[in-house]
This record gives sequence, structure tokens and C-alpha cells, in this order.
Amino acid sequence: MKNQSLEQLFIDELEDMYSSEHQIIDSLPNLIKLASSPDLKEALTKHLKETQNQTVRIEKIFNLLNVKAKENPCEAMEGLLKEAEELTENRAKSPTLDAAIISAAQKVEHYEIASYGTLRSFAKQLGFDSEIIDLIQENLDEEGAADKKLTKIAEGSIFTSGVNKEAVEVGSGVRSKHK
Amino acid sequence: MKNQSLEQLFIDELEDMYSSEHQIIDSLPNLIKLASSPDLKEALTKHLKETQNQTVRIEKIFNLLNVKAKENPCEAMEGLLKEAEELTENRAKSPTLDAAIISAAQKVEHYEIASYGTLRSFAKQLGFDSEIIDLIQENLDEEGAADKKLTKIAEGSIFTSGVNKEAVEVGSGVRSKHK
Repeated sequence: MKNQSLEQLFIDELEDMYSSEHQIIDSLPNLIKLASSPDLKEALTKHLKETQNQTVRIEKIFNLLNVKAKENPCEAMEGLLKEAEELTENRAKSPTLDAAIISAAQKVEHYEIASYGTLRSFAKQLGFDSEIIDLIQENLDEEGAADKKLTKIAEGSIFTSGVNKEAVEVGSGVRSKHK
Repeated sequence: MKNQSLEQLFIDELEDMYSSEHQIIDSLPNLIKLASSPDLKEALTKHLKETQNQTVRIEKIFNLLNVKAKENPCEAMEGLLKEAEELTENRAKSPTLDAAIISAAQKVEHYEIASYGTLRSFAKQLGFDSEIIDLIQENLDEEGAADKKLTKIAEGSIFTSGVNKEAVEVGSGVRSKHK
């Protein structure tokens, strides 16, 4: 039987996120390379820097809890990033590839939003110092902002550009069958 | 090279969600069995029924597009559910196990929220009939409501009950080291 405490569950999930953030740091450079939209490249590059800071915040939380920082290999993130790879592989640079990158990145963001939300809830419940809760909140806020930024890019600069109209119109025949 | 159209990307992602929803239908009964909180059991049972309806809505979308309903094995969901299994295995029924179930379920919900959000955005962009957009929106709304309900249960009936105080207090020593 595993340790039944909520504290241990908090540590398990923190180790999971420590692994997740490192996996993202390894994967983002490839997505940045594949992106065409300058706005998308810039947003992902900014988020790569934020992610590096997020690992430092996680290390601070481990430190405040007197627990050695450790990665718990996160299989959910492995699956998410494998899917990102499959969604984007063998696609030429195009607005559609940009749309696929945004889709994959938003799934990753949402995983992190759910995880940091849970960690914040557990930390409050456990009566942890506000310093720990603030560190979790900072990571959570950055993930939320990154997700919103990606929606803005998807609905703005990619989807309303002339370039993307082309992506919409190079149909697979699905839509014409539908109409 | 893959078909570059946004329509094909929409179909790929729809097939992915068709697989995801079926994986969830297979997994939820086990989580329901493991849950102790009656509110949690009820919320998960309700969501199992919703998930079954969601697969029917996805089939309707395939049908409206004249595309054969097909599953694209969703590796991200496989990872999420494998993690749910690991997070909950070997834990005795307890408020902490309930907290672990909620954590895992909310990660799944967030994956679906991101996916249906993307599908809705693509469908609008592709000028699909409002019937299709409405079907996506109904699934999206149910996922959002399920996520909020789980937060409410986590912060309400589990965490404020006397039973859960016990879970918090059976410490691993982490907190006492910290204090």
C-alpha cells in the first residue's frame, strides 16, 4: 500500500510536474522550428523561457518542504508530446501545421493548468506556507496566459491571414461532400 | 507528406476524440468503484452516461461530414489514463484516494476541454454547419461542467469533512519537517 497521506500525494504530483516541465523544455525547440507564424514562434520562445523558470520554482517548493527535488516520469506528458510529434510530423510548413502546433501546445497547457490547480488546492488544504502557494500560483498564471495567447494567435493572425485561407481551401473533399 | 488541409486536421482530431471518449468509457467504472465519497461516485457515474452520449454526438458529426466514424488511437489519453491508474493503484479507499481520483479525472477533463475547443475553432474556420458546431459545443459544455463539479467536490465535501482531516493529518513527515 502506498503512503495514504495527502502530503505524499502532493509530493508525487510535484515530482510529476517536475518531469513534465523538463519534457516540455526538450520538446518546445522542435515546435518553434516547425512554426511559420512569427507570432507563434515568439509565443513559444517566450514560453520556453517561462518553463525554465517554472522548474526553478518547483525546485524552490521542494526546498521549502525539505524534500529532495526528484522527477517522477510523467507518462501523461509523454503521451501528449508523442501525440504532438505525430500531429506535426510529415507536414510541410504551413498555416495548417501552425494550427496543429497550437492544438498540441494547448493540450499540454491544459494538462498543466489542471495539475497546478490540483497542487494549489492540496497545498491550501495542507496549510502550507503562502510562499509555496504563491510559487504554484505563478506557474499556474503563466500556463493560463500562454493558453490564452495561443487562442488569440489561432483565431487572429493565423486564421484571418490570406495564407490560411489557402489552407482552408486546399480541401480534402470532406467539406465539398458535406455541402 | 500528410494532407495539408485544415479539414483533414479536423477529421484527425475528431478521430482522436472518438478514441479518447471510448477509452474513458472503459476506465470510468474502475474509478467509480474506487471512490468513497457518494458525491464523487455520483458525479463520475453521471459523467459516464454523458460520455456515452458524447460518442453519439461525435458519430453524428462524422455522419454530417459524410465521413466514416473511425478511431485514431489517442496516445495522450492512453498516457493520462495510465497515470490515473498509477496514481490510484495500491491506495486503500480513503479521502486521499478520492483526491487522487479527482486529480486524474480533472486532467482528463482538461484534455477534452482543449480538444473540443480546438475542434470548435476549426469548424468555425471551415464554415461548417451550425449543427456541427452545436454538437461540439454540447460536448465542450459537459466537460466544462464536469470539471467544475469535481472542483466543487474536492473543495467541499471531501476536504471539509472530518474524514478528510484525517487524511491530512496522517502525515508523511514532510509537513512536520517543513514546519
